[in-house]
Amino acid sequence: MEYRIIKSPTQGTLDILTRRKGSGAGREIGPVDAVGLIQGRMIEMVCAADVAEKAVGVTVEDIRGNCPQNMILLAIFGDTASVEAAMDEIRRREKEGREEW
Amino acid sequence: MEYRIIKSPTQGTLDILTRRKGSGAGREIGPVDAVGLIQGRMIEMVCAADVAEKAVGVTVEDIRGNCPQNMILLAIFGDTASVEAAMDEIRRREKEGREEW
Amino acid sequence: MEYRIIKSPTQGTLDILTRRKGSGAGREIGPVDAVGLIQGRMIEMVCAADVAEKAVGVTVEDIRGNCPQNMILLAIFGDTASVEAAMDEIRRREKEGREEW
Amino acid sequence: MEYRIIKSPTQGTLDILTRRKGSGAGREIGPVDAVGLIQGRMIEMVCAADVAEKAVGVTVEDIRGNCPQNMILLAIFGDTASVEAAMDEIRRREKEGREEW
Amino acid sequence: MEYRIIKSPTQGTLDILTRRKGSGAGREIGPVDAVGLIQGRMIEMVCAADVAEKAVGVTVEDIRGNCPQNMILLAIFGDTASVEAAMDEIRRREKEGREEW
Amino acid sequence: MEYRIIKSPTQGTLDILTRRKGSGAGREIGPVDAVGLIQGRMIEMVCAADVAEKAVGVTVEDIRGNCPQNMILLAIFGDTASVEAAMDEIRRREKEGREEW
Repeated sequence: MEYRIIKSPTQGTLDILTRRKGSGAGREIGPVDAVGLIQGRMIEMVCAADVAEKAVGVTVEDIRGNCPQNMILLAIFGDTASVEAAMDEIRRREKEGREEW
Repeated sequence: MEYRIIKSPTQGTLDILTRRKGSGAGREIGPVDAVGLIQGRMIEMVCAADVAEKAVGVTVEDIRGNCPQNMILLAIFGDTASVEAAMDEIRRREKEGREEW
Repeated sequence: MEYRIIKSPTQGTLDILTRRKGSGAGREIGPVDAVGLIQGRMIEMVCAADVAEKAVGVTVEDIRGNCPQNMILLAIFGDTASVEAAMDEIRRREKEGREEW
Repeated sequence: MEYRIIKSPTQGTLDILTRRKGSGAGREIGPVDAVGLIQGRMIEMVCAADVAEKAVGVTVEDIRGNCPQNMILLAIFGDTASVEAAMDEIRRREKEGREEW
Repeated sequence: MEYRIIKSPTQGTLDILTRRKGSGAGREIGPVDAVGLIQGRMIEMVCAADVAEKAVGVTVEDIRGNCPQNMILLAIFGDTASVEAAMDEIRRREKEGREEW
Repeated sequence: MEYRIIKSPTQGTLDILTRRKGSGAGREIGPVDAVGLIQGRMIEMVCAADVAEKAVGVTVEDIRGNCPQNMILLAIFGDTASVEAAMDEIRRREKEGREEW
């Protein structure tokens, strides 16, 4: 899995993510402090999404690339500290290499 | 094949799976105790789905990634013990490497 | 090419195949004794389909994965003996490595 | 490039090709003596199609796999001798490795 | 990048290209003396298209394969000398390996 | 990541980019001095887009290839100096290899 964090993302950056999110382009993503990005295989991303969903203060969206063969990108929106906390938790679980999440 | 199990999945996680399941996004997946995830090639997943279908207490769905070149993800929903039992049976058959399932 | 055979497939398994078959999802596949699965490249599958079509007692369908880059899955439906006979004939031709089928 | 020839193809085999041909599924491919199949990269197939088009007694169609990343399959329909002649000509040009076709 | 040139292409060959060109299948490509084909990655093809556009006596189209993962095919139509001149210029730039085109 | 810059791009080149840009083909890209192209994986491109958006005097668009498996192409439009400045900034960040952008 790969991890990136963008602080104070521009509206244009949020628009690229909005156009490609799994829940449809309808609902705009408002201004956020930070966006965390995690890229990995489908099976890992479902697990990572569940971890992030259980974290506090963040919103999670799966982002479509174009035809990203069972790779998906997860975007975690929220204030910087919450996004970092959610990403650290996912990273910790990935390191443990557990089958059970 | 790869195996993961998520206990007490959040509604957001179930939504990601619902949006991508082969039988269409129409029918919601209700709250479940656990979801088992298996990722593999198309031919293996058809066999694995049949094993899971023959197990008791679980529901099986094939999940689309975006354009996952003959890889598909299988999700097995149910109570924790039933999901684990179905996954163990699939794993056992995979180890045997049998052509006949 | 890879070969698998499922005996007494469940209706759920047949549904996964029905949703993805090349001739459209309209026509249901009724209960069958066995389903043979063969996965390979497009050019090989056209040849294998022709061999199976010329065999007796079986029905042949090409199954779409999601975007399976010139790999397709062939499903051969019928009674167990007929499915096995058709698959053996395809395997025999593949081994010979003939250009002419 | 890969080459296969099917003699006396069944209607079912022609149907698989009809459903996937580039000129649309509308026009049926009638009974033919033989069908030649050539699989290769997009740039080679355009050249091969031009060679086959200039041959006599054959019809050429480009066949879509599912999402065959710049690989396409060319089908050459006609009487056995004409199909073989067209395929030999393509093979001869490929061997020469010429940039100009 | 790969280069091919077809002299006196048949109408059938032009039809395959017409069905897949980026500007839509609506406008027919009339009889041309020659068609140059260049295959490469998306980023290179945009640069090559610009070079060909700046050449005289040729028309440029980007051709879609099926799902050609950031590979596209460029077709350059015109009289033989003009097509060859445009292709030579692209080849010259590619050899220089310049970032600026 | 790969970088290219086209000075004085032709209208035909801008049309190829217009047809494939993420924000839809509706809005034309007017004549520009230069277009910078960056190709990379989805996760990197979101970060690069954010850097370019924060630069002055440029417009950023994500360009679709056909099915470019989690690779996307970013186009940066503007006067030559601004495009070069934005691309240098992205390159500088990439070299640092930072997770935080």
